[in-house]
Amino acid sequence: MASWTSGLDGTWSDRAARMALSCTVDGGDPEAAELVRRLGAEGAWAKVAEGALGEPWARRAAVTDLDLVERLAARAAVRFVVPGDDEWPDGLEDLERTSPIQRRGGVPIGLWVRGPGHLAGWVAQSVSIVGSRASTAYGTGLAADLAAELAEAGVTVISGMAFGIDAAAHRGALAAGGPTIGVVANGVDVAYPPGNAKLFEAVARDHLIVSELPPGAHPTRIRFLARNRLIAAMARGTVVVEAALRSGARNTAGWALECQRPLMAVPGSVHSRASATPHLMIRSGQAVLVTSAAEVLELVSQIGQHPLVPQSGPERVTDAMSEDQLTVFEAVPARRRAAAGDIALVAGVSMPVCLAALNALADRGLVEAGDRGWRALPIQALKQVVR
Amino acid sequence: MASWTSGLDGTWSDRAARMALSCTVDGGDPEAAELVRRLGAEGAWAKVAEGALGEPWARRAAVTDLDLVERLAARAAVRFVVPGDDEWPDGLEDLERTSPIQRRGGVPIGLWVRGPGHLAGWVAQSVSIVGSRASTAYGTGLAADLAAELAEAGVTVISGMAFGIDAAAHRGALAAGGPTIGVVANGVDVAYPPGNAKLFEAVARDHLIVSELPPGAHPTRIRFLARNRLIAAMARGTVVVEAALRSGARNTAGWALECQRPLMAVPGSVHSRASATPHLMIRSGQAVLVTSAAEVLELVSQIGQHPLVPQSGPERVTDAMSEDQLTVFEAVPARRRAAAGDIALVAGVSMPVCLAALNALADRGLVEAGDRGWRALPIQALKQVVR
Repeated sequence: MASWTSGLDGTWSDRAARMALSCTVDGGDPEAAELVRRLGAEGAWAKVAEGALGEPWARRAAVTDLDLVERLAARAAVRFVVPGDDEWPDGLEDLERTSPIQRRGGVPIGLWVRGPGHLAGWVAQSVSIVGSRASTAYGTGLAADLAAELAEAGVTVISGMAFGIDAAAHRGALAAGGPTIGVVANGVDVAYPPGNAKLFEAVARDHLIVSELPPGAHPTRIRFLARNRLIAAMARGTVVVEAALRSGARNTAGWALECQRPLMAVPGSVHSRASATPHLMIRSGQAVLVTSAAEVLELVSQIGQHPLVPQSGPERVTDAMSEDQLTVFEAVPARRRAAAGDIALVAGVSMPVCLAALNALADRGLVEAGDRGWRALPIQALKQVVR
Repeated sequence: MASWTSGLDGTWSDRAARMALSCTVDGGDPEAAELVRRLGAEGAWAKVAEGALGEPWARRAAVTDLDLVERLAARAAVRFVVPGDDEWPDGLEDLERTSPIQRRGGVPIGLWVRGPGHLAGWVAQSVSIVGSRASTAYGTGLAADLAAELAEAGVTVISGMAFGIDAAAHRGALAAGGPTIGVVANGVDVAYPPGNAKLFEAVARDHLIVSELPPGAHPTRIRFLARNRLIAAMARGTVVVEAALRSGARNTAGWALECQRPLMAVPGSVHSRASATPHLMIRSGQAVLVTSAAEVLELVSQIGQHPLVPQSGPERVTDAMSEDQLTVFEAVPARRRAAAGDIALVAGVSMPVCLAALNALADRGLVEAGDRGWRALPIQALKQVVR
């Protein structure tokens, strides 16, 4: 066991044990999370160091150097946040009740955080936008637009810092000057993927980068899977913009459902493979179709906070007509004139009803009486009378 | 009352009364349908002629010339189909239980039919495809493709012969040589709209044109609304391809829901106004999202008749791996070699587990052992081993 474990005492111990665990067991190991739940972090750490989760973790525990980790963290201005801290976000506790997906799961033991944002405060109103690395221009543009509109509305945009949809979402939020959180499958001091290094540093400088892996850690496939649960659990809802049938976004979506968060998906062309997963999720009833930030806000907001104005088409001149008026209006010829009696016959209404309707329509400038009968006014005139 | 009513006797009477009613009251008048339901067609005709539905209908009844109508019908090779006839389609009776929409409703009193198809037979396996007149190239292409695939599967494509989506659906079915039915808001001998006259005549010649209005009748707004209920009630399901927020397709969709038929909608770009109504219907849960004829067939078919093969992505080399193998595979470096002990430490597995996994991976050509340890094979080699 490493020398620093003698430091496990008083208020320090839970934090130190969690930090040591986060350097030893891989993020999202459900057995480790269960040990922490049952025994507390100190008890879990003792068990792991003894080999309760297998000899490999015990060997890792033996080489874990917490002093080195703390020096690395301090150098990169990284803080370690644990349950009970002011910055520990709501929502992660839902992971305790969920079943593992692809053998990952559980509440994170601690979170490594970099950047000036307040994690708990920012997460309180947040939406994750996730999707394909191999996105189309349609998806990328849409992710950026959605993120910008959400950020403008004060909603934090959470995503995974990957190429494609993730990067577009972060960039959209940055462009709008709104809050964004990159949740990564590596150390928060490791700019991954390297092609997104500038974006990574911009988010770290002005916003937040979060990981359950210690500084210096590199991503693996299993770490990506574990990371996805944090995105889904922290966000108040998840939007899938584009994703192929096999994709990490689908895994994130699965976690959103497990955590009973609203899952949303954006439609696209049926010819686009990138929209296949969103369509499948909508079709199966797992996800709600959304086409705008307003629709996203409606789903993730408390009732009445972001009321959505119902959509309707432009008003038409016929909207305000009674059925009799509409029937009579339909029966009035446009290219010739007709007597009121003929119009009444065609319309199938009585003469008094017909005359009343004709007069009402004439008052609105829709029909015109003349020596040889009535005629409808031409379309140009109709357009002018529409408010 | 016109002279021909003396012909109301024996087996002829119900048919003649329905024919006379169809020439007198407007299609989809719910009061007329209710009279027929309560009194039978002969009784309803007598009531209408007496003025029970108002003096205007009585005046129309007085000038209804059934001999003339029959001559017109014979000249255009039009037949009149009534309930009880072999050709009377199933499904229309559901309109008896539905509430009027925009004051139209009820079972049609009779149907005027033109073309060589067998109405009841064709309707038994049918889907309606409806949508905007102002469709996009995306929607038009999709409507034609869906219709062609449905027609190839032996499913009759029902639509309204309008410009845009309707015409594309009929054309798609014609191109595939499959059955199609145009349900119109005018006489089946009146090619409307004139711009679709060639299509209209092609459908009339080889397929079916159907209307509840007598030969010679011209369309009105209210007749379009009444016609929409026939499309929805005859088809086993309705697909909305594109439709603006104000559109007849939305009215047809309302009827499909009233008749408890599956309502389906095709997604598209969120930037396309033509997809606004399909998206709204899907979002609200009224319509199921469909992207292919196979998905349409799955919804309208009896269980097992058109089973849909579940979608999944291409198989990956990692699919067949156990979790241990995947973890070890992730830990094997590609650009240098590592000792099995180091790999076991990184992977967090015991040495025996690590060696078993490495050997299994080597058998599949995924990793390679050498003097200085193990390395992962490059991506090119990985691709080759994928089946």
